[in-house]
Amino acid sequence: MSLIVQKFGGSSVADAESIRRVARRIVETKAAGHDVVVVVSAMGDTTDELLDLAGQITDDPPQRELDILLTAGERISMALLAIAITSLGVQARAFTGQQAGVITDTAHGNARIIDVTPSRIQATLSDDAVAIVAGFQGVTAQTNDVTTLGRGGSDTTAVALAAALGASVCEIYSDVDGVFTADPRIVPAARKIPRISTEETLELAANGAKILHLRAVEYARRYRVPIHVRSSFSSHQGTLVTDELAEDGPMEDPLISGVAHDRSQGKITIVGVPDVPGTAARIFEAVAAAGCNIDMIVQNVSAAKTGLTDISFTLPLEQANAAKAALAALGGELQGAEVLYDDTIGKLSLVGAGMRSHPGVSARLFGALRDAGINIEMISTSEIRISVILRLEDLDEAVRAIHSAFGLDAAEVEAVVYGGTGR
Amino acid sequence: MSLIVQKFGGSSVADAESIRRVARRIVETKAAGHDVVVVVSAMGDTTDELLDLAGQITDDPPQRELDILLTAGERISMALLAIAITSLGVQARAFTGQQAGVITDTAHGNARIIDVTPSRIQATLSDDAVAIVAGFQGVTAQTNDVTTLGRGGSDTTAVALAAALGASVCEIYSDVDGVFTADPRIVPAARKIPRISTEETLELAANGAKILHLRAVEYARRYRVPIHVRSSFSSHQGTLVTDELAEDGPMEDPLISGVAHDRSQGKITIVGVPDVPGTAARIFEAVAAAGCNIDMIVQNVSAAKTGLTDISFTLPLEQANAAKAALAALGGELQGAEVLYDDTIGKLSLVGAGMRSHPGVSARLFGALRDAGINIEMISTSEIRISVILRLEDLDEAVRAIHSAFGLDAAEVEAVVYGGTGR
Repeated sequence: MSLIVQKFGGSSVADAESIRRVARRIVETKAAGHDVVVVVSAMGDTTDELLDLAGQITDDPPQRELDILLTAGERISMALLAIAITSLGVQARAFTGQQAGVITDTAHGNARIIDVTPSRIQATLSDDAVAIVAGFQGVTAQTNDVTTLGRGGSDTTAVALAAALGASVCEIYSDVDGVFTADPRIVPAARKIPRISTEETLELAANGAKILHLRAVEYARRYRVPIHVRSSFSSHQGTLVTDELAEDGPMEDPLISGVAHDRSQGKITIVGVPDVPGTAARIFEAVAAAGCNIDMIVQNVSAAKTGLTDISFTLPLEQANAAKAALAALGGELQGAEVLYDDTIGKLSLVGAGMRSHPGVSARLFGALRDAGINIEMISTSEIRISVILRLEDLDEAVRAIHSAFGLDAAEVEAVVYGGTGR
Repeated sequence: MSLIVQKFGGSSVADAESIRRVARRIVETKAAGHDVVVVVSAMGDTTDELLDLAGQITDDPPQRELDILLTAGERISMALLAIAITSLGVQARAFTGQQAGVITDTAHGNARIIDVTPSRIQATLSDDAVAIVAGFQGVTAQTNDVTTLGRGGSDTTAVALAAALGASVCEIYSDVDGVFTADPRIVPAARKIPRISTEETLELAANGAKILHLRAVEYARRYRVPIHVRSSFSSHQGTLVTDELAEDGPMEDPLISGVAHDRSQGKITIVGVPDVPGTAARIFEAVAAAGCNIDMIVQNVSAAKTGLTDISFTLPLEQANAAKAALAALGGELQGAEVLYDDTIGKLSLVGAGMRSHPGVSARLFGALRDAGINIEMISTSEIRISVILRLEDLDEAVRAIHSAFGLDAAEVEAVVYGGTGR
């Protein structure tokens, strides 16, 4: 008998009927002989509705109270799910993050789990009951204040509990069948990936693919928890996120795992920056102090005659105003440099562990975009990823062109996934 | 500087605009130099909506999980209220029942407060901040499980906190101006009572007047906490519930404080019960074991020839099925007695501490009902109350007739309240 942690997202528990359906699935897992711990998100759009209520009162709610507000959503769904399971004749007990022993730091709104002490969950399993745990929330060790883990934090709750309990797998249920080579809404030929490493999943998730909470994958990587991403609306096998090799697995890493895209960034360009040591440092210190998360940075070669250069960087759209204000406050230090803002960019990222040993990937990417008549504005790379910034209106076409150029379209996929075609 | 506990009911915090209005009132109280602790109920119909959600899943939800579900409502309202107060420039911190130190027994759904340890509330007041506490909820001492105090339990939370903190007054805000001599929707001439004893308030509340949670009044009585019942929609003085004598108060108790009515009871009659010792005991043991709260009981004089008698009792409508089942299970012990059920009764209660020294009240009540052509089916009395069971369709007319017969109508009220007219 193994222990399985199952996490159900908001779309899987959107109403009473959905909750009953999820309860039946949990009971089936239990009936198959497993111990089951369930982590549940708030119903449907509850969290957004609560945020909207707070927004009707003030633009700047205090984070501690906002966390208390937002955790009400999981409190509702976890109780209803426990009630639904009990009505099917299986014992179930619901626990808040605090009761489940999810201890976090004090960073309200984006807290990190620092310990999990799931003694009540273990006692529940010993009683042959299902434990339902509220996702997305924890409690501070010193003050017993409620914290939230940030958007998508329920994934992290599930993985952290799976690690603490020694679960055999953490199943993450949503309304999609698994991790795809690209967003099927943009690329109809996109294909479900049967198995993927945590490293590639991290790159995909960090670059716009809405698969899993980034920190959940980091947690799974560190504690070696296998994640099974699957749909609560079907019984299909989904995508296994793991660094263990499959018995019949590839001898070589796949060249390309998938194409991610991101519409959530803007670009700030500072034109005519004095090209002297320390200028870039001042700029990015100021922007960082304003709480902005810089993604890509490009600095042009200095124009020899003028002694001036241009610096561009990308950041989340919602942080652009803060960055612009921070730059304006620098004032004289920028010596008349002009700050431009562009909110119509898109980012495309190609991810694959096989890139490490296949140097031609960049050239093929750039060639495919050129053939499609699409201009590249910025480039950045990691060991297993290449990202480019494009015009926003070109993004969908670029994703389709790249997906096809790397042989990821459904009909031709097998050879590529197993490292065959290279370059 | 005194400490004031203010409790706001669901209708006072029904939406964002109402929450902002309540926040302004709290800030005004704080600005007037008081320490303020606020107890808040769930917004509007939230609790009913959550109950309805549970009802869509099963008819018989487990009480522990139901309590977790229902407490989500106060979690939302307390966080929003703290956010609203903060946005007005006054520090506020929200606390769950657990964080506020409200310790209860383990009777989920109807828990009793057994201790209040409000150290975090006191620390908040020391920081010159407003403490917002979720009403209606507590936590068990041993297992840290969330409990609820039953419908209207937020009143009890407020009074218990006021007692534990030594508050000068506990203000209970709702959408009515105070305690009235009768329900103004039935008796337009009903009058607000400026001051009333806890004993009379208990009798009114126990007999259908929807003023205050019964246990809140018991708590206030025991710990001598003055309660001020008032409207959050006006700044009028409301009704002061206290056993302290006002400086310019009456020398004599008021003859009649008010007329309460109750439509929530049904009547069971057992016809042809063997009139032998122990039969009534068997009947009421069985009914009590089924969890029914019996209110009034009448047993007819035995009909000499048959050796049989009739027993009638009243109980809450929703407990009638359980009582009938318990009586059916007695079977042979009732020797063929017939069980009748009547769900079209109404109860009228006349309450006044002055009854103790004015013996003619019953006669005047019965006379007034006779003059109005209304039949009486059952009668019960306490030291300061007379209750009668009537046909449900006669109830409103009876309330108006009695209200008028005892001189409670607005224009003629002064003399009566101060004990003048007697009998």
